[in-house]
Amino acid sequence: MANQSLPLSPPKGMRDFGSEEMRKRQFIFDRLRSVFLTFGYEGIETPSMERLDVLTGKYGQEGDRLIFKVLNSGDFMKPVAENQGSGLESKQIVGLISEKALRYDLTIPFARFVSANRGTLSFPFKRHQIQPVWRADQPQKGRYREFYQCDVDVVGSTSLWQEVELIRVFAEGFESLGIQGAEIHINHRSLLMGLAEFLGFAERAGAIIGILDKSDKISPEQLVELLRKEGFTAEHLEKIEPILNWSKGGLPEHLSGSMLEQTQVAHGLRELSWVMEKCLNLGALPGGAKLLFNPKLARGLDYYTGCIFEVVIPGSGLGSIGGGGRYDNLTDMFGVPNLSGVGISFGAERIYDFLQQTNLWPDEIKSGLDYFFLNFDDSGAEIAMQFMAKLRSAGARCDMYPEASKIQKQMKYAHQRQANYVVYIGEREIENQEVGLKNMESGQQINLPWDQLLTHYTNHP
Amino acid sequence: MANQSLPLSPPKGMRDFGSEEMRKRQFIFDRLRSVFLTFGYEGIETPSMERLDVLTGKYGQEGDRLIFKVLNSGDFMKPVAENQGSGLESKQIVGLISEKALRYDLTIPFARFVSANRGTLSFPFKRHQIQPVWRADQPQKGRYREFYQCDVDVVGSTSLWQEVELIRVFAEGFESLGIQGAEIHINHRSLLMGLAEFLGFAERAGAIIGILDKSDKISPEQLVELLRKEGFTAEHLEKIEPILNWSKGGLPEHLSGSMLEQTQVAHGLRELSWVMEKCLNLGALPGGAKLLFNPKLARGLDYYTGCIFEVVIPGSGLGSIGGGGRYDNLTDMFGVPNLSGVGISFGAERIYDFLQQTNLWPDEIKSGLDYFFLNFDDSGAEIAMQFMAKLRSAGARCDMYPEASKIQKQMKYAHQRQANYVVYIGEREIENQEVGLKNMESGQQINLPWDQLLTHYTNHP
Repeated sequence: MANQSLPLSPPKGMRDFGSEEMRKRQFIFDRLRSVFLTFGYEGIETPSMERLDVLTGKYGQEGDRLIFKVLNSGDFMKPVAENQGSGLESKQIVGLISEKALRYDLTIPFARFVSANRGTLSFPFKRHQIQPVWRADQPQKGRYREFYQCDVDVVGSTSLWQEVELIRVFAEGFESLGIQGAEIHINHRSLLMGLAEFLGFAERAGAIIGILDKSDKISPEQLVELLRKEGFTAEHLEKIEPILNWSKGGLPEHLSGSMLEQTQVAHGLRELSWVMEKCLNLGALPGGAKLLFNPKLARGLDYYTGCIFEVVIPGSGLGSIGGGGRYDNLTDMFGVPNLSGVGISFGAERIYDFLQQTNLWPDEIKSGLDYFFLNFDDSGAEIAMQFMAKLRSAGARCDMYPEASKIQKQMKYAHQRQANYVVYIGEREIENQEVGLKNMESGQQINLPWDQLLTHYTNHP
Repeated sequence: MANQSLPLSPPKGMRDFGSEEMRKRQFIFDRLRSVFLTFGYEGIETPSMERLDVLTGKYGQEGDRLIFKVLNSGDFMKPVAENQGSGLESKQIVGLISEKALRYDLTIPFARFVSANRGTLSFPFKRHQIQPVWRADQPQKGRYREFYQCDVDVVGSTSLWQEVELIRVFAEGFESLGIQGAEIHINHRSLLMGLAEFLGFAERAGAIIGILDKSDKISPEQLVELLRKEGFTAEHLEKIEPILNWSKGGLPEHLSGSMLEQTQVAHGLRELSWVMEKCLNLGALPGGAKLLFNPKLARGLDYYTGCIFEVVIPGSGLGSIGGGGRYDNLTDMFGVPNLSGVGISFGAERIYDFLQQTNLWPDEIKSGLDYFFLNFDDSGAEIAMQFMAKLRSAGARCDMYPEASKIQKQMKYAHQRQANYVVYIGEREIENQEVGLKNMESGQQINLPWDQLLTHYTNHP
């Protein structure tokens, strides 16, 4: 056993990704990125760190606790010594020894970016951003301290075409990953707020939204029980019964007349109808995706003000794999008011889990190499290198065993590298100016004249 | 002027990347990644953070100072209070309040990865890794506190074919970026160590390597002066004169006989000849790249033991844009001895600067959109959305102005978005079932029947 002088595992809640995982992760990011670009959402990146005061107070008290703070460089304790009265409690000195922190999400950095560059950006400004974020959460299955977020937003336009576009981005995105039948749920914050007000719960709208937000995870009885605790009477419950029992799908027709006249309710329904109608006019969504009105969809986050979205794959047992909505005042905190935006997020880590559990990965990423050349001796190796140079220029992934080791060992390695074909150039093959070619899946072996190996690739890329 | 309640710029030495910069950066990373994959170097990723003790002491005293340390979560000062005797100096408490740090390079995390996964990896293990690293350096032109590294390594094989492969990776890599005429300099650590020993300077070999390392930046006279200070006599200088005055190119033939017999010198020359000969046999390097023996090439880093490389673009004034070499004991510190490896790095940030200063970027990344649809009214917009759905599925990057604003405003926006074509669907176009199409570069305008717009894209992708 080796003497392990240093720890070998990554820090708690963080992961190494090996080559097969990377192929799969890269597949997800590349496909989504392509879709985002066809819709005109160009890429941006922001630094991993932000100033601590940019992040603090944006994610609630719990969020603040989970932000990874970066220690100032140099003699970081000097300001503490100079402020001796300030005490040595963690809370008291954190601001003295740390002025930067790792980003907690992509939303606040994006808002800062837009505010910083408002003079040079063209509005509406459409962007996508695929970068890791960090949270000092207790790690558990599916929850990591470093994970990628994958966001798409447009700011500076109140047009509902943006909502229509983002619904199609969801559908095209999942289709590009080979995921069929995603359900895109839609609701409107005004509808929720208006209903709360209509029932006389305007001040507690936030709490009610919080309860509705759980509706997919609890039984209808538990939902009613929670609403009762919030003060809902039998009369209230009767009034919203059409909503509580609404099966996801088209817009509600059974809401009572007076409810529909409430200003916010009417506004929300008008916007939802417009968006859903325009989507319908564009024809079926790609990948068999469905757009469904879900009146119980709430989305926990405070900053949403218009349409809200959430995507699930029915039967996957995975919860939401995407979500988003319209917000109106994201850049206010940076001194840039009245910049409406709407954005969505793809839950890349959960999408990975779904593709993994269904093994929907395309064949192309199941293999690690197109051709693996066995090494019999130096003269064969030199010929192999010649072939590899040509094949690689044509885009083929090639490799050769670096030594003339036992063939069994080399074949095992070829197998571990997930090669599609093994190529061998022994004495006889050199004499005949041929290569031997073994299909690693079927086991079939053929001989090919030297001048046909490149054609073999262009015919079986 | 907006009230800037929060700072808008990224932290010192860190950068936001906008859409055009991202297209360019992505171009570099995508092209290099493709080349790495054709050579069988698969991707891996390691976490942004490592345990502090994994990083400390690996980069020298100065390096330790430049490592960004992450503050422990929760009540980080508790261990300080419990160790009251330890004092409050920064150096004394850093280990108590921080146990993780941001990676400083990709080499140490790679060594940890290989050691952690030695039981499941197939050796030789070939990988590439493209990720940001962080250094608390004083920022200056071209030096940032967060920047990407782009590394290619193979471990677990002493075969010199690996060196040959990496030389070709350099050449294919630069060719894929449109960079012609890169010079790949090669030397061998044994040659340098052997010469130092032959001259009686074995113990000061490190210092001499440090001096030679500067030889590209200082005059031959200054070089001689530095060697004199290190104790070199006229006799010494005469002996190494063939090396000091060696013009880069083929292997030295003028070294005196006794020098050539020194074990390490002989070993270094033997390996260099083998690598250079095999490279020659494979024919001209792609992209007009040249492989040149450079006896003054030293590479500062301690861990190199065999061939060393450095790449320059003559006349660019940029210094090295790539480098690397063979190392023998990188995983020793993790308890895994005798794992020889060789690796190279592409200086992605400098490559960016070079492409920027020469404007060698390909046309495809100069544009942000293929088609931009003007918005005259809702009915035209709806037709535009139909076209965009088809074009996007075919891979075209499309966008539409979300409101029926003034055409001048929309055209300005199309220009800012760097669109190749502007498409307009006004009343007359709808009547004739046509679209208007304006080439934004040439200014040329044509009309196309509706069924020919998709063909227009497939013919002008």
